[in-house]
Amino acid sequence: MTTTKKNTIITIGREFGSGGREIGQKAAKALQLECYDTRLIQMAAEQGSMNADVLSSVDEKRASPWLYSYSSSGDYITNPQTGYNISMNDRAFHLQSNVIQQLAQRESCIIVGRCADYVLRNFKNVFSVFIQADMESRVQRIMSKYDMAEKEARAMIKKMDKERSLYYNYFTDKRWGRPDGYSMILDSSKLGVDTCVNMLCALMKSGSQQ
Amino acid sequence: MTTTKKNTIITIGREFGSGGREIGQKAAKALQLECYDTRLIQMAAEQGSMNADVLSSVDEKRASPWLYSYSSSGDYITNPQTGYNISMNDRAFHLQSNVIQQLAQRESCIIVGRCADYVLRNFKNVFSVFIQADMESRVQRIMSKYDMAEKEARAMIKKMDKERSLYYNYFTDKRWGRPDGYSMILDSSKLGVDTCVNMLCALMKSGSQQ
Repeated sequence: MTTTKKNTIITIGREFGSGGREIGQKAAKALQLECYDTRLIQMAAEQGSMNADVLSSVDEKRASPWLYSYSSSGDYITNPQTGYNISMNDRAFHLQSNVIQQLAQRESCIIVGRCADYVLRNFKNVFSVFIQADMESRVQRIMSKYDMAEKEARAMIKKMDKERSLYYNYFTDKRWGRPDGYSMILDSSKLGVDTCVNMLCALMKSGSQQ
Repeated sequence: MTTTKKNTIITIGREFGSGGREIGQKAAKALQLECYDTRLIQMAAEQGSMNADVLSSVDEKRASPWLYSYSSSGDYITNPQTGYNISMNDRAFHLQSNVIQQLAQRESCIIVGRCADYVLRNFKNVFSVFIQADMESRVQRIMSKYDMAEKEARAMIKKMDKERSLYYNYFTDKRWGRPDGYSMILDSSKLGVDTCVNMLCALMKSGSQQ
């Protein structure tokens, strides 16, 4: 399966608090393209005829390793095709993966998170970008964004990075944030948000010419 | 010490065989700027009234840790200001550092290797780029460039990366190739040389607007 020649996709992985989502949205706006992030949940829910709030609660999280042993809370569902139980997290991942592949076949776009680089690994013209930033910049960004004390912001960053890493490493055969897995890594604390946006725009234009 | 407002400098660190030098040269040409790499040796030799061939033999290498214990071969020289012996490698590094700082004050440019990111750490508008590539692409590039068998190419890549890493880690307080040390990392095997060149051009233009 490959994209049509004109479609170029940029996927964005990002450290929590690095501004990755904002950078993706601003670049998409400048390029007059769509940036898909949390709304992939809504699209996946519609495609799977599922409740978006339920899917949202497991978005970008892997299932607990204890789920199949102890859970009786409805955290898993039965796959109608196989009869096997699968976790809600797995279901969310597979539904979102279908949506991501359909989008990549349809249009040039930017996709934030959801292991999109891995989901589109067999597509052409897909560029995987990772956005990082130093801890102090991330703490400042999170404190300001969520009106949060420094200690809480640091704890939230640690927790979210761990969740994203566990999620990515569970669903892919790569390691989250490891430089050899990406086409381009940008440090938003060194470059600034505007230059990161310019880099994504240049990448999309260069990719479209190939 | 800072550059004048109009000067923007891109420094390039690079894995051996990643095409980093070629990318720097092509970007400089497209931008109508200079790219400084091995010719920094000639400039350093002129500034220090030294033999360029001698300096070239220690270019981008740290001194052997055994030098001061055993050497009697003239691999070190006496610093006329302090009376202390210093290695030829240290002398080459300091001369090149002076040249690099003078260049950064004078003009926007691209500088390949020579710990230029660290040498210019207190300058404004300096963007440190690292260029990497997967091993197979690097082997192919080196085999073709030096008309070399695969086994020799792999050995040469390993040796050169080790030398560059030892050199960088000795003269700076950072770790060669570690992603948190760079503004931008490009994978030339995933992006292609032309897109890497476009990224450097976009970075130079974006940096110049700041």
